[in-house]
Amino acid sequence: MRSVEDHLQAVLAGVTPLSPLDVTLVESRGCVLAEDVTAPWPLPAFDQAATDGYAVVADDLLTASDGKPTRLAVIDDVPAGYRASHDLTPGKAIRIQTGAPLPEGADSVVPLDRTDGGMREVAVTRGVRAGDHVRHRGDDVELGEVVVPAGTVVGPREIALLAAVGRGRVSVHPQPRVVVLSIGSELVEPGGQLAPGLIADSNGVTIAAAVQESGALAYRVGPLRDDASTLLATLEDQLVRADLIVTTGGVSAGAYDTVKSVLSRLGTVEFTKVAMQPGTPQGHGTLGPDSTPIFTLPGNPVSAYVSFEVFVRPVIRRMLGHERIYRPVVRAVLVDPLPSPAGRRQFARGVLSVEEGRYVVRPAGGQGSHMLGGLSRANALVVVPEDVTEVKPGEAVAVLRLDEV
Amino acid sequence: MRSVEDHLQAVLAGVTPLSPLDVTLVESRGCVLAEDVTAPWPLPAFDQAATDGYAVVADDLLTASDGKPTRLAVIDDVPAGYRASHDLTPGKAIRIQTGAPLPEGADSVVPLDRTDGGMREVAVTRGVRAGDHVRHRGDDVELGEVVVPAGTVVGPREIALLAAVGRGRVSVHPQPRVVVLSIGSELVEPGGQLAPGLIADSNGVTIAAAVQESGALAYRVGPLRDDASTLLATLEDQLVRADLIVTTGGVSAGAYDTVKSVLSRLGTVEFTKVAMQPGTPQGHGTLGPDSTPIFTLPGNPVSAYVSFEVFVRPVIRRMLGHERIYRPVVRAVLVDPLPSPAGRRQFARGVLSVEEGRYVVRPAGGQGSHMLGGLSRANALVVVPEDVTEVKPGEAVAVLRLDEV
Repeated sequence: MRSVEDHLQAVLAGVTPLSPLDVTLVESRGCVLAEDVTAPWPLPAFDQAATDGYAVVADDLLTASDGKPTRLAVIDDVPAGYRASHDLTPGKAIRIQTGAPLPEGADSVVPLDRTDGGMREVAVTRGVRAGDHVRHRGDDVELGEVVVPAGTVVGPREIALLAAVGRGRVSVHPQPRVVVLSIGSELVEPGGQLAPGLIADSNGVTIAAAVQESGALAYRVGPLRDDASTLLATLEDQLVRADLIVTTGGVSAGAYDTVKSVLSRLGTVEFTKVAMQPGTPQGHGTLGPDSTPIFTLPGNPVSAYVSFEVFVRPVIRRMLGHERIYRPVVRAVLVDPLPSPAGRRQFARGVLSVEEGRYVVRPAGGQGSHMLGGLSRANALVVVPEDVTEVKPGEAVAVLRLDEV
Repeated sequence: MRSVEDHLQAVLAGVTPLSPLDVTLVESRGCVLAEDVTAPWPLPAFDQAATDGYAVVADDLLTASDGKPTRLAVIDDVPAGYRASHDLTPGKAIRIQTGAPLPEGADSVVPLDRTDGGMREVAVTRGVRAGDHVRHRGDDVELGEVVVPAGTVVGPREIALLAAVGRGRVSVHPQPRVVVLSIGSELVEPGGQLAPGLIADSNGVTIAAAVQESGALAYRVGPLRDDASTLLATLEDQLVRADLIVTTGGVSAGAYDTVKSVLSRLGTVEFTKVAMQPGTPQGHGTLGPDSTPIFTLPGNPVSAYVSFEVFVRPVIRRMLGHERIYRPVVRAVLVDPLPSPAGRRQFARGVLSVEEGRYVVRPAGGQGSHMLGGLSRANALVVVPEDVTEVKPGEAVAVLRLDEV
C-alpha cells in the first residue's frame, strides 16, 4: 500500500495556481492576489482638511481666545470633491470640509467647534499650529509603494486600500470549477423517495459543500447509476467546464463497479490502496484534452469526506494560489482510548476543545466509515500514525482542525 | 456622548434572526439551522454489508481454512441498491456488495479477500463470527434522535447527516440583504478617472466585502453625490429589497451633508456622538413601511470600517441567527506605545501575532482615520478603554480579532 505522504505528493505533483484573471474588487474578496499592487500616487494624494472647519494661516490666530476671538473674512467655501477658487492670503479664511484639498496659501485648518461657524466672517476662539488638522500628501502611503503584495488573500481591508490607489479591478487566481459526481445504483437524490436497499446520496451534497467551503465553485452532477456508458457520457460532458473532477463511489472491489473500467479507457487514472483508514481505495489521474485532474473517492460517506479533506482540499487550495494549503494541526491530549489499525494511518473523527488551557480531544461517536452521526459532531480528525495500534487516554495526538482554514 | 456599550445595545434592540426559509442542502451551507432535524428512521436504516463479499451463516464456516476451504453454493448476487431475491439458508452464500441489505437468514458477511471470489460456488478460507462485517440497523443514529439541532451552523459534515436522514431541504435563517450606499460628491467609482479633490469610493467596496464576509448578501449602490433628492429617491427604491441599509459619508458637521436632513424626513433615524475613536459620528434608526434598520456610518474609510465591525456586524450576525455575534477577543501584550484620547474608547488597528507562546500586538502604521495603509496590514483592533490615555509597551490590552469568526 502507498503511504498517505506518497499519495499526497502524487496528487499535488504539477498542480499550480490557476491562471490569473481580472476581477472587480468585490469579486476579488477571498481570492489570492496574483500581482503586486503598487501605489501610482501617494496617499493622501493631496494635502487635505482632516476635519470640517476653516483653512487658515496659523500665524493669524496667535491671540485668538474665547474672550477675544480673532475675526477673519471668509473668502471661499470648499466642500469635499471641490477645490478652492481662490488662494488663501493672510488675514482671510476659507471654509472647508473634511477631505477637501487644502487651499494654496493655507497651512492649517481650524476645527468648526473653535469658531462661530460664520459664512462671511468667522470668529475664531482658539488658534492652531501650522500643520494642524491637515492630512499631508503621502503620510499614509508613498508613491510606488507595494500596497498589497501578490499572494495576499484579499479581504475588506485590502479592498479599501486597492480602491484608494485607483484600482477598480485586480488580478487574482480564480476559483477552480469542481465537478462533483456521485456514482451508485443505490443512491437517491436527498429528500427523494427511498425504498429498501436505497439510500440518500449524501456524498454529492457533502462534497459539493466541502468544495465551496474550500473556496472553489462546486457543480454537482448525479447521482448516476453504476453504468459505464452513462458515466462515460457524463464525464465527457463535464470536462468542458471542469478544472477538477471529484467522483464518489463505484470504486470498491465489487463486481458492479464501473468507474475503473471507464476511466482506464478515458485517461491516465491510477487506482491505489493508500495505507489509511478510512479511505483506503483511492484513484487519481487526469482526463481529457486538458489533462483535467480527477479524484475517485470511495463511496462510504465518511471515507469520501476524509479523503476529500486529506487529498482534494490541498489540491484546491493550491489551485486557488494559497500558500498555506493544509488545515492547521495541533497537539491535543486524548481523553478516551482509541484503537487503531496496524499499518494504516487512522483519521478518527474527534471533538477538539480547550480544557484548563490545553487542547483535549475525544473520539466523536462511532468510527465506522458509514457513521455520519459521529462525523456531524466532529470538528477535528485525530491522526493516529501507522505504527500505533492504540492510543491511551492521556497521550498526546496530532489533530487536524476541520473548523479552521 | 453615548458609550460604545449603550450604542451597541441600542442598535441590537429588537433585532431578531430573519424568518426561516426552506433551502436546499447545498444552499444551507454556512447558514444557521432554524429547526431541530430528527431522524425519521434509524441509521443505518437496514442491516447491511459493511464490505464486499458473501452473506453467510457464520456457523457454516467453523472449519474453513487455507488448507481446507469451505465450499458454499452461491444462490444470489446483490449489488448495492438491490435486495436479494432469495432468503439465505444454511450451506449457501449470497454474493453481496458494500451497503446492500443483508439477506434474510444471513448473520454475517465474509470479505471477498477470504474467498476465491466464485460466482456459482465460493471457497472460503477463513470464517467469521455472527455479526461480523455487518452494519446494524440503528448503530449510528436512533429513530427519532435529534441529529442536527436548531442553531447549528450548517457545514459539509452536517449536510452529510441531513441527507442521510432523508432531507433534501432544511429550514434556515436566510442571509440578510444589505444595501451598501456611499455618499459624497468627492467620490469616484474605484478605477475611474480621478481629478484634484476627488477620491475613489473605497467605502462602498470595502463595506460590501465586509457585509459578504459577515455572511450576508451585499447590494452596492452609488457612490451618490451629496444631493438630497437623489438620496431620497435612491433610499425609497432600495427599501424594497433591503433587510438592512448601511450608508457611509454625508454625516459630518459640514454644510453640505444631506443624509441627516433626508433621513429626518424619511424615518426615525437618530444621530449620535459615540465616545469612540475612530467612528464618533453614528446614526441609526429605521426607515420605511417595514421599519428597515439603517446605519449611517462616517465617511472616513477607517472610521466606516471600524464602525461596521463594532456595530453593524453584530446586527448582521444576529439576523443570521448566530449565537456568537461578536468577534473573538484575546488579551495581548502591547509591543509599541499607544497613545489614546481621553474619554473615548480607541479601536486602534493592530497586528496580532504569537511570540514565545503568548499573544503580542503592534499598532499597524498610521492611526489617522483616513489611513488605509495601516488598516490593510491590520488583523486586529486594539481596544483601549475610555479612561486610558496611554498604553505602555509590555502592558496587556484587549484585542478584537478581525481574522476570526
